[in-house]
Amino acid sequence: MALVVQKFGGSSLSDTERIRAVADHVARTRRQGHEVVVVVSAMGKTTDELIRLAGEVSKVVPGRELDMLLTTGERISMALLCMALAELGVPAASFTGSQAGIVTDAVHTKAKIVEVRGDRVRGALAEGKVPVVAGFQGVSLGREITTLGRGGSDTTAVAVAAALGAGVCEIYTDVSGVFSADPRLVPDARRLARISFEEMLEVAASGGRVLMHRSVEFGRRYHVPIHVRSSFTWEPGTWVVEEEEAMEEALVTAVTHDTSEVKLTVSGVPDRPGIAARLFRGLAERAVNVDMIVQNTSSHGLTDISFTVPADDLAVALGVSQAVAPGIGATGVTADAEVAKVSVIGAGMRSSPGVTATMFEALAAASINIEMISTSPIRISCVLRRADVERAVALLHDAFELGTDAPARRAGAS
Amino acid sequence: MALVVQKFGGSSLSDTERIRAVADHVARTRRQGHEVVVVVSAMGKTTDELIRLAGEVSKVVPGRELDMLLTTGERISMALLCMALAELGVPAASFTGSQAGIVTDAVHTKAKIVEVRGDRVRGALAEGKVPVVAGFQGVSLGREITTLGRGGSDTTAVAVAAALGAGVCEIYTDVSGVFSADPRLVPDARRLARISFEEMLEVAASGGRVLMHRSVEFGRRYHVPIHVRSSFTWEPGTWVVEEEEAMEEALVTAVTHDTSEVKLTVSGVPDRPGIAARLFRGLAERAVNVDMIVQNTSSHGLTDISFTVPADDLAVALGVSQAVAPGIGATGVTADAEVAKVSVIGAGMRSSPGVTATMFEALAAASINIEMISTSPIRISCVLRRADVERAVALLHDAFELGTDAPARRAGAS
Repeated sequence: MALVVQKFGGSSLSDTERIRAVADHVARTRRQGHEVVVVVSAMGKTTDELIRLAGEVSKVVPGRELDMLLTTGERISMALLCMALAELGVPAASFTGSQAGIVTDAVHTKAKIVEVRGDRVRGALAEGKVPVVAGFQGVSLGREITTLGRGGSDTTAVAVAAALGAGVCEIYTDVSGVFSADPRLVPDARRLARISFEEMLEVAASGGRVLMHRSVEFGRRYHVPIHVRSSFTWEPGTWVVEEEEAMEEALVTAVTHDTSEVKLTVSGVPDRPGIAARLFRGLAERAVNVDMIVQNTSSHGLTDISFTVPADDLAVALGVSQAVAPGIGATGVTADAEVAKVSVIGAGMRSSPGVTATMFEALAAASINIEMISTSPIRISCVLRRADVERAVALLHDAFELGTDAPARRAGAS
Repeated sequence: MALVVQKFGGSSLSDTERIRAVADHVARTRRQGHEVVVVVSAMGKTTDELIRLAGEVSKVVPGRELDMLLTTGERISMALLCMALAELGVPAASFTGSQAGIVTDAVHTKAKIVEVRGDRVRGALAEGKVPVVAGFQGVSLGREITTLGRGGSDTTAVAVAAALGAGVCEIYTDVSGVFSADPRLVPDARRLARISFEEMLEVAASGGRVLMHRSVEFGRRYHVPIHVRSSFTWEPGTWVVEEEEAMEEALVTAVTHDTSEVKLTVSGVPDRPGIAARLFRGLAERAVNVDMIVQNTSSHGLTDISFTVPADDLAVALGVSQAVAPGIGATGVTADAEVAKVSVIGAGMRSSPGVTATMFEALAAASINIEMISTSPIRISCVLRRADVERAVALLHDAFELGTDAPARRAGAS
C-alpha cells in the first residue's frame, strides 16, 4: 500500500459530471489498496469569472483581496468533490490551504511555499479518510490568505507529496502526458514514457505548458516522482523522474516552442562596461522577466542589445527601455512582437556536441533565419520569425527522429 | 465619532453595481465622521446556486462540506466590496469568520456563536481601515468552518457590534423597515420608527421576515440597538431598541401573519396524564419545531390534540404522529395545510386586557372562524383558514388603527 497524491486541474473539474468522474477514480485508486490525498484546482473557468467580477467593481485590485476572492474557487471544487466521494461511500474531508498547513511567504498573488505542516491531512489519513486539499492557496505567518500564482496547484500537490513522503504525485490534466512536440503541430509527436526533472524544467521554461517550472523544481529538490496523465482517458502518461531512472539517455527528448514572448532592441548603445547593467537593473526593478539576451558585435564602439520578455510585460519593458535609453546614450528602442522561440531539449546533449549543428543545418535547409540563440547544457533555443515556427518545430522533430514512425525510438513509446 | 456596524444582505449585494453602491454608502458614512465595520452576506442567489451544484454531485451532503462550500459566498462578496472601497480610496480589509474570531460550537449548518474575539477587526480599525467581515460563518474550537443557519449574517452583525461596543448595528435590506403589517396586504401599513426588542422577537416568531429571531435576541441580551433600513433608498428605517426607549407604549404595534405552518390533529386520544408527553417527546426527538398546541375539552374521556409545525416538517411530523398514535390509543391523525396564523403584537397589551376581545370581535364580525389561539404577554395569535388571512390582517390593522390614515397614530409615523 503506497501513498498517492492525485492533483486535478480545472479542466478535470469543469462541471459536476467531471467531479463525479474524479470521485470514481479516487475510489478506484483506494480499492487498489492505495492511500490517496487529493489536491484540487478551481472548477473550469471559475477563476476567470471571479476576475471579471473584480474588474467590474474596481480598477484597483488589492492583492490581499484578490487572493481572498480567488481562493473561493478551490473551496467550491474541494467541497463538491468530498460530497461526491461521500455519495460513493468514501469518507473524505476538505482542507483549505490554511487548514492543510500550507505556509507561504506574505507576497499576495505569487506567494512561495515555505513549509507544509500537514498535521490535519495526516490526521484525516489516519482516520481512513481521503483528505482533499485546496491547491494554489496558502496562509502566511501573519495569518493572511495567499495564492501561489500561475500553476500554483501543481506546486501545492508536489509540496504536499514531499511533506507526506508520497510514492508519487499524479498530475491529472486534459492532455495525456508530455510529448516530443506539440501534437497540434506535429501529428506523429510521441508521448514520452519518462523524462528527467532537468529536461522537464527546460521544457517548462521553453514553452511547454503541461507543468509549470516551480512544481517540477519542487519535485526535483524533494525527489518526488511526478506522473502527468489524463483525467479523460485515465491511461498512464509521462513520468518525470530522477535522471538516473530515465530509461534512455536521449540525444534530444523534445522540441518545444513559445510564442508568448516579444523581442526588444535597444540600438546604438556605447560598448562600455556598465551600460547593459543599467538597462537590466531597470527592468528587474519593475519585475520584468527577461528571457534571452543578445548583444551584437561592436561596430565603431556602438552595439545593439536585443532581449525577449513575456508579451504581457511589453508595455512596462518598453517604458523602462525608453526611459533608460537617453542616459546610456542609446539611439533608439524598437519592439518586435512577430517572433517565436523554438528549443530542442535532451539530457544526451551534454555528451554530444553535434546537436547544435544538426539544428542549425535543419533550419538553414528550410531557409529559416535564426535571430537569437541561447543554450543550456541540455537545451538549445533559437528565436525566429513567428510565421516560421510551426514549420520549424515539425522539421526539427523530424531531424532528430522523435516521431512515432522513427524506427530508432519506437521501443520507447508507450 | 461613533462606531457603526453596517450589515448588507444578499439583495443589497446582488451584482457589482449594487456592491459599488454599498461602497459609496460606507464611504459616505466615514465622511460623516463614523468608524465603520461592515458585515456581508453572499451575493444575491449565490447560495442557491452552490446548493444546486451540491445536489448534482451527491444525494449525501455532509454538513462539514456544505459549510465549506457555502462559506465561499461571503468571501466573494467581501473581497469585491473591499476592492470597490479601494477604488474609492477607502482602505479596507476583509476577514473570514475564522479571521474575525467568530467562534462557534461545532454543529455544522446551524452553529451558534459562543464568542467573538475580533482582535484582527480591532487592529484593522486602529489602522484606519474598514474591516469587512463575512457574515453567516464562524470557526469551531476544533478549527472547523461552520455556518450559523438561516439569518446567520444578521446574528454575526449584532454579535460583532456587541463585541466591539458599537453604537448601532444597521441592518440594510430590501425593505425600508419594520411595518405595522405586510404592506403587500395592507397598503396603508405604517413603517414603525421604533419597536422594542420584545415586540420584535414576537414579530420574528409570528411571520415577520425582516429580522430573524436569533439576531434580535442577541441585540436584546447585549443591548445593541438595531436599525433596520433600506439599501435602495438609504432613508432612516426602524430602530429596534430597549423597551424604555420606545417612543410610545402602543396598545398594538403590528399585525403579522404566517402561512408557512401546517396543522396536525391527533384524534380520539384518551384524556390521561402522559399521553401528550409521549407525542411531543417523539416530535422533539426528530427536531420538529412545534409552534401552537391546543387540546380540546374532553368528551367521554377522549380528546383531540391539534398542533402546528413548519410545512417543511410535515412529512416527519406526520410520520411520528402516526407511529405514536396506536401506542397512545389515538384513533387517527389528520394534516391540514390550508391554515394560516394571524398575530397582533404590542407591549401595551400587558396593561390593556381589551385587546383580545377587540381582536375576536373584529374577526367574528367578518365571519372568520378562529381554530386555535395562543398568547404571550404581548402577543395574541389565531390560526384560521388560509383563504381568510389577507382579509384578517387588513381588518385587524384597521381595528387597532395602525394605518397611516389613523389620526391617533399619525404623530408616531416618520
